[in-house]
Amino acid sequence: MVAAPSSPVAAAMARAVTASRLVQGTTSPNPPVGCVVLDAAGAVVGVGATQPPGGPHAEVVALRAAGDRARGGTAVVTLEPCAHHGRTPPCTDALLAAGVATVVYAVGDPYPEAAGGADVLRRAGVRVESGPLAQEIERGPLRAWLHYARTGTPHVTWKYAATLDGRSAAADGTSKWISSAESRRDVHRFRAQVDAIVAGRGTVLADDPQLTARTPDGGLAERQPLRVVVGEGDLPRDARVLDEAAETIHLRTSDPREVLAALADRGVVDVLLEGGPRLAGAFLAAGGIHRVLAYVAPKLLGAGPAALADAGVGTIADAVDLGIEDVTRIGPDVRISAVPVRR
Amino acid sequence: MVAAPSSPVAAAMARAVTASRLVQGTTSPNPPVGCVVLDAAGAVVGVGATQPPGGPHAEVVALRAAGDRARGGTAVVTLEPCAHHGRTPPCTDALLAAGVATVVYAVGDPYPEAAGGADVLRRAGVRVESGPLAQEIERGPLRAWLHYARTGTPHVTWKYAATLDGRSAAADGTSKWISSAESRRDVHRFRAQVDAIVAGRGTVLADDPQLTARTPDGGLAERQPLRVVVGEGDLPRDARVLDEAAETIHLRTSDPREVLAALADRGVVDVLLEGGPRLAGAFLAAGGIHRVLAYVAPKLLGAGPAALADAGVGTIADAVDLGIEDVTRIGPDVRISAVPVRR
Repeated sequence: MVAAPSSPVAAAMARAVTASRLVQGTTSPNPPVGCVVLDAAGAVVGVGATQPPGGPHAEVVALRAAGDRARGGTAVVTLEPCAHHGRTPPCTDALLAAGVATVVYAVGDPYPEAAGGADVLRRAGVRVESGPLAQEIERGPLRAWLHYARTGTPHVTWKYAATLDGRSAAADGTSKWISSAESRRDVHRFRAQVDAIVAGRGTVLADDPQLTARTPDGGLAERQPLRVVVGEGDLPRDARVLDEAAETIHLRTSDPREVLAALADRGVVDVLLEGGPRLAGAFLAAGGIHRVLAYVAPKLLGAGPAALADAGVGTIADAVDLGIEDVTRIGPDVRISAVPVRR
Repeated sequence: MVAAPSSPVAAAMARAVTASRLVQGTTSPNPPVGCVVLDAAGAVVGVGATQPPGGPHAEVVALRAAGDRARGGTAVVTLEPCAHHGRTPPCTDALLAAGVATVVYAVGDPYPEAAGGADVLRRAGVRVESGPLAQEIERGPLRAWLHYARTGTPHVTWKYAATLDGRSAAADGTSKWISSAESRRDVHRFRAQVDAIVAGRGTVLADDPQLTARTPDGGLAERQPLRVVVGEGDLPRDARVLDEAAETIHLRTSDPREVLAALADRGVVDVLLEGGPRLAGAFLAAGGIHRVLAYVAPKLLGAGPAALADAGVGTIADAVDLGIEDVTRIGPDVRISAVPVRR
């Protein structure tokens, strides 16, 4: 049963999505979930989102806010409530204890050990419905975690900026700035939401990037993703990526599978891959890119390197096919989001 | 005075624009103009568009359709009516003879010898207003002709298809097909609206394109643009571009200024430049590209040539800056239209 889009439940789900977006980047390896509790009359009495690992899940936060008003009401949650004991007790227990009459969730839990929350609730007499916005949530706040849950490895978004003619730097190597200030702010927003930023040692040597997430006023964001430099050979001691602004690890390999396995071991779910071209080519060839985020700047260079180097494709029939998810104008630029499609 | 957008005049202007679009590519060196005549009560009594050179202009076609019903009515026209004798008598004469009370036009005539149509009409007692949609018409059906009128040289749209990573062919040179069937149909629609398609001799040798405009069912379009191959050295006798499908000229130069001057001499107003990369670079460096039409396909190659070669830009600060006019999804692809901006 799918809730009608104009119902209080639909509005609550939209609010739950917003709540979940605000905690993106702070919950891994747990999913960023949002929950809104409605009382028996349909009024919002609690809003919550997943707290950092070890802290309460979204349902518990929202139920605590609602208190007794949850009894006979509805819990609207972006992900099927868990029914297993992890670092915290099952959310199904909290929902039953609070006496909610109905639970509406958008996305089913893909983890075999956690799944079954809906069944547990139904057996206890709770009405359980699937709710709206499942696709938006799967592509949005829960995207990386769902990938991680299904595959056991982090979700990788490859981000790059290029001119309209496909150059990521000019003939002399200069690249500041290909994209606009608006696009760079947009990238910092993405950085603040991921668990780790990955860049190749070559990029560190060539561009000396700091790889931090910054706020629109230029200051450091409150939470910084893990900085990951990959590739054999030492890094310069004075490299900006080694400064105090955030944690940094150096993985002495350029094998994407080794990189992703090492990151999965650290509980990294959501990765932003920021170059360079050879590393991106290696990740693409290994099937290690799950989304492409291209900032296309309306400039022409006519010379200079492309954003992507050898990915093992020699002829047009072997091109990696993507499907475009979104095209958005960001200031003067165009941001294209695309995902690999299976053939 | 600007007509209210919801008036019969605004609706008539929109209809005049549509009429003018239908004759794009058939009127050069005259402008593709549309005209709608309303009777005194505001009802549409005549629609017309510029006929091929030597034939009547839009106003005359529309007035003939309206007959006596034009008397006391309004002529709505996309371009200021001409007041000079060319191959046909002045349109102002026809409007005065028909007894229209009001003339509404969108775009002022930039030709000194033809301009003044509004003044001629006003002096004869006709009410003259500037109408809506001027920007849409300047960027749309009258774009190339206005450029030609102001500069004396053809308007050049550089069209190319590339992958998201900026490749116009794979490492082995294969490029069929980078872009989708939908994008290729869109290109054929553009081809059918221009006066000439320009390609370099290198592209003819490498790809043997026919450079014709085709209808969606694959047949030849009724009207074919002039095919122009540029570059020194002979062409293969069996090159498809030399077939009977359309007229072809071979200009034995790669100098963009010489090419544009030769085309202007032939009355060519609207040019589609279709490659290759070196020719596009030479045109860009010479200031000979006035619009870029990029079909970006959601594919990744990681190797292969870019669509644009040397344009004399060595460092990022010297990049050619464009402004994006339009971003449209065409089937699976993204079409980006951009124009150079002055600095």
